[in-house]
Amino acid sequence: MSRDEFSDSSVVKLTFASTAVQGGSMNQYKAEVIVVGGGLSGLSAAKLLREQGVDVVVLEARDRVGGRTFTIQNDKVRYVDLGGAYVGPTQNRLLRLAREFGVKTFLTNEVEDLAFFSRGGMKRFRGTFPPMGGLLSWLDMNNLFRTIDRLGEEIPLDAPWTAPHAAEWDSMTMQQFFDKHCWTRSTKTFMTMFVNVNVTSEPTEVSALWFLWYIANCGGMNRIFSTENGGQERKFVGGSQQISIKMAEKIGNDRVLLNHPVSKIEHKPSEVVVQDVNGNRYTAKYVIIAAPLPIQNKIIYDPPLPSLRNQLLQRAPMGSVIKTFMYYSTPFWRRKGLCGSSAIDDKDGLVGFTLDHVMPDGSHPALMGFILADKARRYVELTPDERKSRIAHLYSKVFQTDEALHPVHYEEKDWLGEQWSGGCYTTMMPPGFLTKFGSYLRRPIGRMYFAGTETATQWSGYMDGAVQAGERAAREILHTMGKIRADQIWQSEPEDMEVKPRPFNVSFWESNAPSVPGLLKLLGLTSLLSAAGAGGFVYYKYLR
Amino acid sequence: MSRDEFSDSSVVKLTFASTAVQGGSMNQYKAEVIVVGGGLSGLSAAKLLREQGVDVVVLEARDRVGGRTFTIQNDKVRYVDLGGAYVGPTQNRLLRLAREFGVKTFLTNEVEDLAFFSRGGMKRFRGTFPPMGGLLSWLDMNNLFRTIDRLGEEIPLDAPWTAPHAAEWDSMTMQQFFDKHCWTRSTKTFMTMFVNVNVTSEPTEVSALWFLWYIANCGGMNRIFSTENGGQERKFVGGSQQISIKMAEKIGNDRVLLNHPVSKIEHKPSEVVVQDVNGNRYTAKYVIIAAPLPIQNKIIYDPPLPSLRNQLLQRAPMGSVIKTFMYYSTPFWRRKGLCGSSAIDDKDGLVGFTLDHVMPDGSHPALMGFILADKARRYVELTPDERKSRIAHLYSKVFQTDEALHPVHYEEKDWLGEQWSGGCYTTMMPPGFLTKFGSYLRRPIGRMYFAGTETATQWSGYMDGAVQAGERAAREILHTMGKIRADQIWQSEPEDMEVKPRPFNVSFWESNAPSVPGLLKLLGLTSLLSAAGAGGFVYYKYLR
Repeated sequence: MSRDEFSDSSVVKLTFASTAVQGGSMNQYKAEVIVVGGGLSGLSAAKLLREQGVDVVVLEARDRVGGRTFTIQNDKVRYVDLGGAYVGPTQNRLLRLAREFGVKTFLTNEVEDLAFFSRGGMKRFRGTFPPMGGLLSWLDMNNLFRTIDRLGEEIPLDAPWTAPHAAEWDSMTMQQFFDKHCWTRSTKTFMTMFVNVNVTSEPTEVSALWFLWYIANCGGMNRIFSTENGGQERKFVGGSQQISIKMAEKIGNDRVLLNHPVSKIEHKPSEVVVQDVNGNRYTAKYVIIAAPLPIQNKIIYDPPLPSLRNQLLQRAPMGSVIKTFMYYSTPFWRRKGLCGSSAIDDKDGLVGFTLDHVMPDGSHPALMGFILADKARRYVELTPDERKSRIAHLYSKVFQTDEALHPVHYEEKDWLGEQWSGGCYTTMMPPGFLTKFGSYLRRPIGRMYFAGTETATQWSGYMDGAVQAGERAAREILHTMGKIRADQIWQSEPEDMEVKPRPFNVSFWESNAPSVPGLLKLLGLTSLLSAAGAGGFVYYKYLR
Repeated sequence: MSRDEFSDSSVVKLTFASTAVQGGSMNQYKAEVIVVGGGLSGLSAAKLLREQGVDVVVLEARDRVGGRTFTIQNDKVRYVDLGGAYVGPTQNRLLRLAREFGVKTFLTNEVEDLAFFSRGGMKRFRGTFPPMGGLLSWLDMNNLFRTIDRLGEEIPLDAPWTAPHAAEWDSMTMQQFFDKHCWTRSTKTFMTMFVNVNVTSEPTEVSALWFLWYIANCGGMNRIFSTENGGQERKFVGGSQQISIKMAEKIGNDRVLLNHPVSKIEHKPSEVVVQDVNGNRYTAKYVIIAAPLPIQNKIIYDPPLPSLRNQLLQRAPMGSVIKTFMYYSTPFWRRKGLCGSSAIDDKDGLVGFTLDHVMPDGSHPALMGFILADKARRYVELTPDERKSRIAHLYSKVFQTDEALHPVHYEEKDWLGEQWSGGCYTTMMPPGFLTKFGSYLRRPIGRMYFAGTETATQWSGYMDGAVQAGERAAREILHTMGKIRADQIWQSEPEDMEVKPRPFNVSFWESNAPSVPGLLKLLGLTSLLSAAGAGGFVYYKYLR
């Protein structure tokens, strides 16, 4: 449907009726579909429905759209994404939306060397993963990456609970997985950081099945973690929240009601009645709930949810991250031949991962830094000024210059404290969740349908997954309405014409090098191996 | 304060004012303290405050008081507790309330033998824990019980996150703890059932720190698991919900407002305004929230909660249990010399644990059975009739008679589907919860105070803990009001005059028998030990 058709569409206008309801006279509205949540997922759903001529209303709790995307503007930063920001190849749905609204992307800088800070020292490197020191460490990490990708291939992305080893992997934490598969301390340390930065949780908290699925659903280890050719390749000129703002405009700003937290959903055989916290009631044929799982628990359901969904909503908490930006007068790291990307392993350092954040025109140089998982919990009660000062000090060690001690500005966003997100980037699923509750994640309940990036099967946890989930939920309703066929609900997305994925080069040695136990076997050290194998894990220090 | 003084007290009457508020004209009320939640904990708080002359209102979401205590009455059962039912020695606060209201207790029958059903066969036994077969199993289980109690003694009950090994134990699941400490398959199997029945969750889900604390907070392995001299020693004549009903009467039924789910709390420096889902507003000086943690997440907070509490409420889900009662024309198990207590290890059997449920006068014979944790999730979508039929079949195997196939009546309660409890018996805390979020569990936030059995330090998870938590929260407010001293907030409870604890006899061998690795050392099998020790676990089958 073209833009002109859309603006001319004879969509039923939002009807209004002042009706006496329980507790006083409150307002009553009607629409065909109510969408709960005005983030990327809810707006993607509403936009698609509206383009198909469906009368839709979006109820958003906050005073803004965009959910976990949040762009601020001021003189010191021009604009900056305090929430979701990055986009890369294979995120074709998000790229399509951006293109539709004329939102351009620009490359995240990674021209110069990357930095790996560990045990008090900094090493430069190129490529996706940092240098690990000795041969055993390299073999160990190489084998672990291969293993995670290989096991991920066994997991059906749309139903990880049906994977051949689902029960086994869902009964262990990622920490147990590392204890079983890692042979060197350095690989374990790096993999902890890898879990932290990818899912803002600790390896001791997350299910191995869920984490393996999560990596696979993003296209594998290289795709998820790379800047160039990966998830962090680009950002949006003007910020990511624009896409939600422009979607709301297209849907019609009078149909996207801000400051309307939903407190109750009555779902009946014939209709749904959604009530906001002010007592206004919205009657519709269908409702799409496009909110993080714990936030859906803020709603009272009448009748109550089925038992397993009632418990599901208690069991998938949101991750813990504070996103920070340290602004400097010059991008001093580039002068030192560093691109600004760094992975930081430091016991008391707040930030675990940085990326360059300089405007496309070279102005407003800054370092983006994530405070992740346990660090976020430990340091969230400091003041922003205390965090600023400690991070500047950390950067002076990582980038090895006192220039880092003199920022000109600081921005941050504590997502742990966000009532309407619960945390960021996405949900984390603990042991037992997927196998016991997973099949309920997006199963419709009567006239209620479920969106949100947590229900996606590609780039779940990302902006792209939010779009996939929103559009899929919208098409589930279109199908129920008889407007499309069942086989049109799930649609693959054509590849973006400009942002194209390239295969990752895998060297002969990366494919064929032995694992640590493999090497020990080759060397005939099988007795050492059998003792060690019982434990499944030997610290590097015992081996070198 | 005597009962007469109470009824004569000149408590300020609930004031009422019809006031125009946002969205239409809704009602506005005032009180000194609002209690959110009319279960045992909220009512205990309100009762204590009322006895001190404080003007208090209780807002309850359900159409009844009692929360997770729920007594039904009909001809087939006379009365039966579909929720919390058991009470025993050291639960002195609950016993004191029962005594105040003239509610008597009666003994759970355990005169005859107990049954342990495993690998298709039934063994009779006496005492708390079933016979485990061979010597190694006995040594292993004996050592594990000692170990759990010994480690529990290291944990401060009011601050488990400060235990010397808190970080280590909170980074592992109870499954990992068993993998580390159990040497025999039979002990592992039994301990899985032990976790299931005590906390309605799986060992793969729960933090070892939390579980060790939980056992310790109930007085140890013997106290929590025993019928005689333990947590299941007695039930209340007439059912446990009576205590809540009688508390509500004493508080004043006009002050306990049913069908009033709270949707929002505005907590300001000067006052709190609690809004129910119908838009009615209640202004007070203080609020006590006495609801399970995930249910507290149903409320919108203005201003939002501190970051760590915002995330805490997402991270402590409620356990999974369906409580069942199978009624028969005669207590056939007693005729076979079995008391009705059984522990059941059966892959497809629904029920994992039974107790005799015959009325004190011998009428209405029944078996109480819990469907626990994964079994509850697996079988919750069966119909009640299907569950009835499968359980009757299971009982025919456990109690070895076809009489079990012919029940005369069946009652059950699926707690997973309860919107206002979220599950039963109590919350389960996953790895990382206590060390990262625990200190926020009952820390007041401005004028908001926290009760609920989850915040107790003795018998948390039980009715007795609910009373402790409610009374403590009430006294926190009395202290803030200047009515009591700080050192009067936490009060120990005198021992009940009739229901008295006795020490558990620990035999010489129970204290001094070696563990499995200890035995192997004694036998000089240290080479076997060192290979096995690396794994920390050897299946019994390899050892015998």
